[in-house]
Amino acid sequence: MTPARFISPVWWARDRLMLLDQRLLPTQEIERAYRRWEDVAEAIRTLVVRGAPAIGVAAAFGVALAAQESRATTFDGLWADLETASKGLAATRPTAVNLFWALERMKRVALAARDLPLERVRARLLAIRDADIAANQAMGAHGAALVPANARILTHCNAGALATAGYGTALGVIRAAHAQGKVAQVWVDETRPVMQGSRLTAWELVCEGIPHRLIADVVAASLMARGEVDLVVTGADRIAANGDTANKIGTYSLAVLARHHRVPFYVAAPFSTIDPALPSGEHIPIEERDAAEVRRVGSHETAPPDSPVFNPAFDVTPARLIAAIITERGVFRSPYRFE
Amino acid sequence: MTPARFISPVWWARDRLMLLDQRLLPTQEIERAYRRWEDVAEAIRTLVVRGAPAIGVAAAFGVALAAQESRATTFDGLWADLETASKGLAATRPTAVNLFWALERMKRVALAARDLPLERVRARLLAIRDADIAANQAMGAHGAALVPANARILTHCNAGALATAGYGTALGVIRAAHAQGKVAQVWVDETRPVMQGSRLTAWELVCEGIPHRLIADVVAASLMARGEVDLVVTGADRIAANGDTANKIGTYSLAVLARHHRVPFYVAAPFSTIDPALPSGEHIPIEERDAAEVRRVGSHETAPPDSPVFNPAFDVTPARLIAAIITERGVFRSPYRFE
Repeated sequence: MTPARFISPVWWARDRLMLLDQRLLPTQEIERAYRRWEDVAEAIRTLVVRGAPAIGVAAAFGVALAAQESRATTFDGLWADLETASKGLAATRPTAVNLFWALERMKRVALAARDLPLERVRARLLAIRDADIAANQAMGAHGAALVPANARILTHCNAGALATAGYGTALGVIRAAHAQGKVAQVWVDETRPVMQGSRLTAWELVCEGIPHRLIADVVAASLMARGEVDLVVTGADRIAANGDTANKIGTYSLAVLARHHRVPFYVAAPFSTIDPALPSGEHIPIEERDAAEVRRVGSHETAPPDSPVFNPAFDVTPARLIAAIITERGVFRSPYRFE
Repeated sequence: MTPARFISPVWWARDRLMLLDQRLLPTQEIERAYRRWEDVAEAIRTLVVRGAPAIGVAAAFGVALAAQESRATTFDGLWADLETASKGLAATRPTAVNLFWALERMKRVALAARDLPLERVRARLLAIRDADIAANQAMGAHGAALVPANARILTHCNAGALATAGYGTALGVIRAAHAQGKVAQVWVDETRPVMQGSRLTAWELVCEGIPHRLIADVVAASLMARGEVDLVVTGADRIAANGDTANKIGTYSLAVLARHHRVPFYVAAPFSTIDPALPSGEHIPIEERDAAEVRRVGSHETAPPDSPVFNPAFDVTPARLIAAIITERGVFRSPYRFE
């Protein structure tokens, strides 16, 4: 058992962006260095970094890299370079709104600092990571209050330290509840097809010494039927103004099963995940990913090469199935008014 | 695209039992020959052959091998050898009742033939395969009548030719409906952790040219919410007298989701799957399999080696969630009276 440590998938090292390559966990812990925003965009697209808040932080750092590498001598020239980087980074993944929020925020920060030297602009841009961690810790405290004693908690995908700048959203709630001695067991959905649950969440829980058991996603219903799940908590990639929530494929399935078995289903996400421009979830764009994710695991082929595949990366859970949405600003319940 | 052909995972070749090694599909088609019942037991235990009816047929052939290899010169001596083989074969897997049924049937057949030469005993024992295929075809005809035109059908695991002596139970219904031109699309659950859906069902559908798309198990709920599933049909490993049905882990989850979305959920299984001695599903033994099935796929590790795992192979779907049970004797509906 590895001793507890502070896990972060994205950090700044002097003049480079560092990413922990999440595709290789848990068998290898490889850190990669980035100097060009184009390479950061590729890292987001290929899932070196994933998880809505972490994508936002990585993209923001990508903009910071563009500022650093820019040869512009005027603010307008710098601004044009930031715009190019921002557009390129925005085109990587369509569902997580934190990505767009982080890019907009970087542009606002840059505009506000337009009269300062580049060094100062960069320093301001880099503060986004610390803000994300602080938000997660506040979210954890709010969420832990909802967790009963001896709780058996089921979670899906990875909404942990690895999905954020550190600490985590859904897993932040679990971390905080564990610190209060309230967690009897975490049920970890392996989360096909990309296995973020078994590869990443289980790895974080081993690192932290939090008791858990890994399950195939299809086991959740049986556990609920046997009364072995007290609550479900997941992260979110985008939340509409009415509370409808897009998250990793399989989340909606869990929410329906939780309702059937009268188990409360919670969502934990930073406020930046809420998209006030979207009245409901039906217009959230759902990314479809490559068939190879389903046809093989690693290099191991699990399906005939000519079998067609449908591989949506996310689904939408209607607000009526969500018991509460936990944010750094507090706990929201239906009817949702995010203010 | 391979042309349509008759798929069978278990057959008799002169004096040997042949099994198609289902662990290696779809990348390799390897046939293995067996001369000793002990090796057949090991093949059942290690999933060379799987699927409740196919396990029953393989075990029955295992008894036939024991009869062939026996050095006994009296019927009582032969009987003792058959008993030993039968006990060894019965100890391989606990959930599928067809296994025990097939072994009991072999003993009845042997007893009834006690005055005949061994050759004749063996010939009678071998007829079980043809009986299984005929049952599947009758089941297919009954089930196809429940399938509407342009049906989008979701199935889980492999209840196909590979799970039986040939043709299949749930997939037999789909085959028969396809022959009637009624199948627009089959949604194939990949079926973690052993991937019988992607490895076996998709392979069968490619062989037959039946239109299908492979999905991660967690996608089913979204498809139902979008109105893209007209019915669900699965096989069964054991059915209690009240209709409660044990089947591959994930079946119960599908049944709950189908109920929530008002999609009919059917079970197709030979009559021998019904265990009249069990009043309800709560006492069906559920096999737990090795953690390695969840921690890795092929040789590819997907979880930390020290993460604990819960890996039940089956779950129980209560009769109230089942629209009908399709057998070779016809279609049964609640309240179930299997006569």
